[in-house]
Amino acid sequence: MDSAPLYQQLADHYRQAIHAGSLAPGRRMPSVRALMSTHDVSLSTALQACRQLESDGLVEARPRSGYFVQATTPLRLAPITEPAATLPDPAQYIGMHQRISSVLARSQQDPSVFSLGGARGAPSLYPLAALQQAASRILRRDATLYGEAAAPRGHPALRAALARLALRSRFTLSPDEVLITHGCTEALQLALRAVAGPGDVIAVESPTYYGLLQILESLGMRALEIPCSAQTGLSMEALELAVRTYDNIRAVVAMPNLQNPLGSVMPDAHKIRLVQWCEDHGVPLIEDDCLSATADLDTPLAAAKAWDRSGNVIYCSSVHKVLAPGVRLGWIAGGKWHARVEMLKFALSRPNEMLSQAAVAEFMATGGYERHLRRLRLALRQQREWTAQVIAATFPAGTRLTLPRGGFHLWVELPEGVSSEALFEQALREGVYVAPGLMFSNSPRCDGFVRINCGTPHSAQLERALGTVAAVVHRLAA
Amino acid sequence: MDSAPLYQQLADHYRQAIHAGSLAPGRRMPSVRALMSTHDVSLSTALQACRQLESDGLVEARPRSGYFVQATTPLRLAPITEPAATLPDPAQYIGMHQRISSVLARSQQDPSVFSLGGARGAPSLYPLAALQQAASRILRRDATLYGEAAAPRGHPALRAALARLALRSRFTLSPDEVLITHGCTEALQLALRAVAGPGDVIAVESPTYYGLLQILESLGMRALEIPCSAQTGLSMEALELAVRTYDNIRAVVAMPNLQNPLGSVMPDAHKIRLVQWCEDHGVPLIEDDCLSATADLDTPLAAAKAWDRSGNVIYCSSVHKVLAPGVRLGWIAGGKWHARVEMLKFALSRPNEMLSQAAVAEFMATGGYERHLRRLRLALRQQREWTAQVIAATFPAGTRLTLPRGGFHLWVELPEGVSSEALFEQALREGVYVAPGLMFSNSPRCDGFVRINCGTPHSAQLERALGTVAAVVHRLAA
Repeated sequence: MDSAPLYQQLADHYRQAIHAGSLAPGRRMPSVRALMSTHDVSLSTALQACRQLESDGLVEARPRSGYFVQATTPLRLAPITEPAATLPDPAQYIGMHQRISSVLARSQQDPSVFSLGGARGAPSLYPLAALQQAASRILRRDATLYGEAAAPRGHPALRAALARLALRSRFTLSPDEVLITHGCTEALQLALRAVAGPGDVIAVESPTYYGLLQILESLGMRALEIPCSAQTGLSMEALELAVRTYDNIRAVVAMPNLQNPLGSVMPDAHKIRLVQWCEDHGVPLIEDDCLSATADLDTPLAAAKAWDRSGNVIYCSSVHKVLAPGVRLGWIAGGKWHARVEMLKFALSRPNEMLSQAAVAEFMATGGYERHLRRLRLALRQQREWTAQVIAATFPAGTRLTLPRGGFHLWVELPEGVSSEALFEQALREGVYVAPGLMFSNSPRCDGFVRINCGTPHSAQLERALGTVAAVVHRLAA
Repeated sequence: MDSAPLYQQLADHYRQAIHAGSLAPGRRMPSVRALMSTHDVSLSTALQACRQLESDGLVEARPRSGYFVQATTPLRLAPITEPAATLPDPAQYIGMHQRISSVLARSQQDPSVFSLGGARGAPSLYPLAALQQAASRILRRDATLYGEAAAPRGHPALRAALARLALRSRFTLSPDEVLITHGCTEALQLALRAVAGPGDVIAVESPTYYGLLQILESLGMRALEIPCSAQTGLSMEALELAVRTYDNIRAVVAMPNLQNPLGSVMPDAHKIRLVQWCEDHGVPLIEDDCLSATADLDTPLAAAKAWDRSGNVIYCSSVHKVLAPGVRLGWIAGGKWHARVEMLKFALSRPNEMLSQAAVAEFMATGGYERHLRRLRLALRQQREWTAQVIAATFPAGTRLTLPRGGFHLWVELPEGVSSEALFEQALREGVYVAPGLMFSNSPRCDGFVRINCGTPHSAQLERALGTVAAVVHRLAA
């Protein structure tokens, strides 16, 4: 099924071996001849694979000796501190829209500011030409596209394509169980409104995506922040503790795969436990799965929804981060609340316009989508690793970081006593925007963290921006 | 400013005279020579105008005698019964989503059903080629359109164009006071959520657009239905009476121009009184103005917002009914709640995608928009008049109708004792969908009414569909 060129598959194989430490720095790569016989490939494929690894900076060629694994610094940063499995914060009304929107507004005021604050790829990472050409073809082909009402649940071909994608996340859906939305944001709104109302307590990960906190605030709901590990995500112990204090949790919202901002992935055993716990307690589980397609793993990540037997999991995802940041398409499979979700969507914004849906469906029907994902994952991995190396080399001692296996950003623990708010202020004054940790929790607990975007390919400007941030952190740590 | 061809302006002038009765059926039109001298036009312009009136079926040419006003039946239907200015219905939670969605779902089940139930124009009424070409140009011109995040409040050029349109409705806005939404539906959601919460009492027109009732239901709000006149819309007497019973009205939602479904237009004096009343009582007024561009009048209709001095009026409108039914673009000017509206939109669905906004903005910047509106108004007037004549000629005695001066539909009062629910059921069985009155009120008061679409140009199929409905009404009235 993997249609990447053979040399690239081979290079990927050895890249993983290098990252896993099976081939330590300084070790000699198998010779080109050995590669040929071990993997049954041609001379040119074996050579191309070595050159690929060389251009990725993973091996170096030594004259007459062959290729050697580069003595690059393995990441010399301690992983992020694990949270104590203590009681969560008391459930509280969110009162942080002002804080978040002031951060966002200030970061956008000056167009010369270099943004390290988003969690989004640069336009060059996306198959824009193919998508825009598809849209143009559709506009020419369907003369009344702008003259007819949109299809009620979304474009049938797109719903079919998304139902096929679900298979990769290890669950099955019929296209009729898919509803197209305006991004994952609208999907989460619909999910929350389907199962809860103002004043209700919603258990969320901590830290969590600030957009979720804004949604909760706009709905007048209360957030119960459950501590999360940067490795394994939502702490089931903390969730189980929480329910002893709060008997009125109306929903759990979680991002089991590549959590934003932590980058954590819940092990499948934890996903199973979470789905079961929610089922047993009659608490709907709302799953945000908008980043799993960026995972840098041999096997696609399973969604928690894969273990849902009763329709208790509402699955929300989007294509716009993964496929085209200018296309705001998301989707929701509402489980046993799907009819209510459809009603709410109709009353909220009616069906989405057809054009971008049709273009994405057309693109997904080709092999181009898989090829794009492979390129995107590779680019993001290289950018995450490079950024992490820069941080390891330039930030002061005490900085911590857990390298995620996918996604667009790093979540960095600053040296003790360094406030992300101060970092945000000072870096912005010097022309760089970073997302301060306090955007990701209603409590002050995340002020010692910062989210750094890795979606922008390497450039001198990016290097300078990271240098600016490092210098500010040094000043603040002093 | 009127850039319609001269002959058409002349034809319109006489069309109005014929409709107003100044030129009675059977009367001779002024001679071509008289037209030339009275209006200072050329022979060919005068002749073209007469031929236009002839092809519209308003005059007939008699050999050697000139043109005579057709003895078409003037509308021989009594106007719709005016409501008594009694107390409104008690405020109640809406519980009619099931009813509405079952009607909509059943009307869509069989694609061979002919729909007279919508309030929307056929694709042929819209400038689709120009809009779709604009979209294609933009896709070619802006290679990263799908790769970049959408502009926060909507496309700047579209916001500027809409701010210019507001001038025609007699109020001024800066483009920064305009927020682009997913249709008028999202605009109304935002407006209601900005000023009210679950359980709150909202005064609405009765009958009203069923979409508004669905929105209120989805938000858990209570509707207080204020009787409306088919001529002058919302009854201020009833609203003033209502406030003596309900001291907790949190907002008024009204459609002063071409109300859906009544087609009524509030006289400016009533608009002034409504704006003032809301201001005096500290009750926000939410104005839905999505049809006023279809008004068949010499002077554009003023919005109630034109008399708003304190930001107490939240203005909602859309371009999609007027410009392109497949483009779901609406907009909102939130007055003193605008910042909250912007926050809610960000949390609801983020900014709209750019492409259709850019295409509409480009089209609006040309003269094509005004030309389109003139054609649309003319087509809709002819279709409303023709449909009204058919109803007058074929429905049983006791049918009543007030011919609206714009919009896509007629609101028909059925002969006493005829239920629109029965009509809906029986007509659907015979392949025709009409929108039963009970969709337009939470109470049963509208069961004696039906909404008939006039957005579809004349065809044999349309004629047969109206014939089917007439036959069913005859049966039910017998």
